[in-house]
Amino acid sequence: MADFVQSLARGLLVIRAFDADHPELTLSQVARITGLTRAAARRFLHTLVALGYVRSDGRLFALRPQVLQLGHAYLSSLSLPALAQPHLEKLAAQVRESCSMSVLDGDRVVYVARVPTKRIMSVTISVGTRFPAHATAMGRVLLAAQDRAWLDEYLAKARLERLTSRTVVDARRLRQELDVVRGQGWALVDQELEDGLRSLAVPVRGPRGVVAAVNVSAHTSRGNALAVRDDLLAPLQAAAKLIEEDLRQ
Amino acid sequence: MADFVQSLARGLLVIRAFDADHPELTLSQVARITGLTRAAARRFLHTLVALGYVRSDGRLFALRPQVLQLGHAYLSSLSLPALAQPHLEKLAAQVRESCSMSVLDGDRVVYVARVPTKRIMSVTISVGTRFPAHATAMGRVLLAAQDRAWLDEYLAKARLERLTSRTVVDARRLRQELDVVRGQGWALVDQELEDGLRSLAVPVRGPRGVVAAVNVSAHTSRGNALAVRDDLLAPLQAAAKLIEEDLRQ
Repeated sequence: MADFVQSLARGLLVIRAFDADHPELTLSQVARITGLTRAAARRFLHTLVALGYVRSDGRLFALRPQVLQLGHAYLSSLSLPALAQPHLEKLAAQVRESCSMSVLDGDRVVYVARVPTKRIMSVTISVGTRFPAHATAMGRVLLAAQDRAWLDEYLAKARLERLTSRTVVDARRLRQELDVVRGQGWALVDQELEDGLRSLAVPVRGPRGVVAAVNVSAHTSRGNALAVRDDLLAPLQAAAKLIEEDLRQ
Repeated sequence: MADFVQSLARGLLVIRAFDADHPELTLSQVARITGLTRAAARRFLHTLVALGYVRSDGRLFALRPQVLQLGHAYLSSLSLPALAQPHLEKLAAQVRESCSMSVLDGDRVVYVARVPTKRIMSVTISVGTRFPAHATAMGRVLLAAQDRAWLDEYLAKARLERLTSRTVVDARRLRQELDVVRGQGWALVDQELEDGLRSLAVPVRGPRGVVAAVNVSAHTSRGNALAVRDDLLAPLQAAAKLIEEDLRQ
């Protein structure tokens, strides 16, 4: 494609070479992870240093907080998380469980707002965290809202990863689950993402359909799945309704 | 600079053209905001669409959630926020006020972890939010930890913006404040960032010095500044100590 700016693609790849397992990288490591030559990796790293996105002590390179401004450009361009945040804060205070909002990105849910109360998952969830949609309550709500053609293609192609012994990994069964979710207007996922964790999610509807999902998560020590629905569905639906009202204004 | 990859710099500028006031932009608007020609702006936008960072309906362009992965690369490369998060969650539950962690980026503080309880500021704070360091408690703690030469240069050059009638905008007075903060080991900022908002912050120390600041913020309806210190300093210091202990492991 003549229009494609290879240098931009490669530069973004260099940023994404850094992660929890590789917070600091040498030039050679960046070259290896990105598949770039050492000379090219050096040019991109030096550019990112000059722009303030990367710091270096001469040998090791690491990302600088300015990188957050790129993600922040996306977040601040969405009015939805800002608008949802106070409602999620009230909901979290009311039910004393963590609440979140996600949108769908391909076959993943991406957290765009989060009010944590206490840690119940093995990983820290923050804005930007991604999980496979099929194994999460918010993902099921968002998948159920997609049109038929999109869903057919997703179900035909998606690799439905088994994350716990309970994860639905069969496409036909997932389709049935999504039909149920679409019908009842909420999804409850019981330890399919992580053992010990249940999540209840409902859609947030805008003028042109579902725009996000909000959830409450709870540890299994709270009681059984039925208790989660009985205790948490009404407050969660009420919060979603308030968000939808704010959206219309 | 021969080593500088202009295309990468321009592509990142295109991402940052989008914000709360400009969630959707036309090609012409992107060109105007970034100072690029229309032809160049088109190439960068098309590249970002091909890479999945931008979506387009043909006329309007908008960022896609994948942009969050760039910021997430930075966040996940920091072990500190993940490590601090459970301690901030406990602290927020204990004192029933929002708690955060920030690092310094130039003359700004950048939020890297946040546990909101209820909204008391006019703006939504999320990970990636930036505030002028001089007007915030976390900023004062982080400024006070900088070495003499850095601080001299900062105080000589910084534009100390007045955000409320109480903001310290005089460099000499700010230096005195920082001396006090350094001596006592905490900072209390009383409505210098926003009317009605107080914040108390302490440093988090790693093996090579201060690595971050943590804070508790409170609305002025909670009582006077003295009450904020009396009620919140001990729990905040205890949380910082637990984070420091985890850091050493």
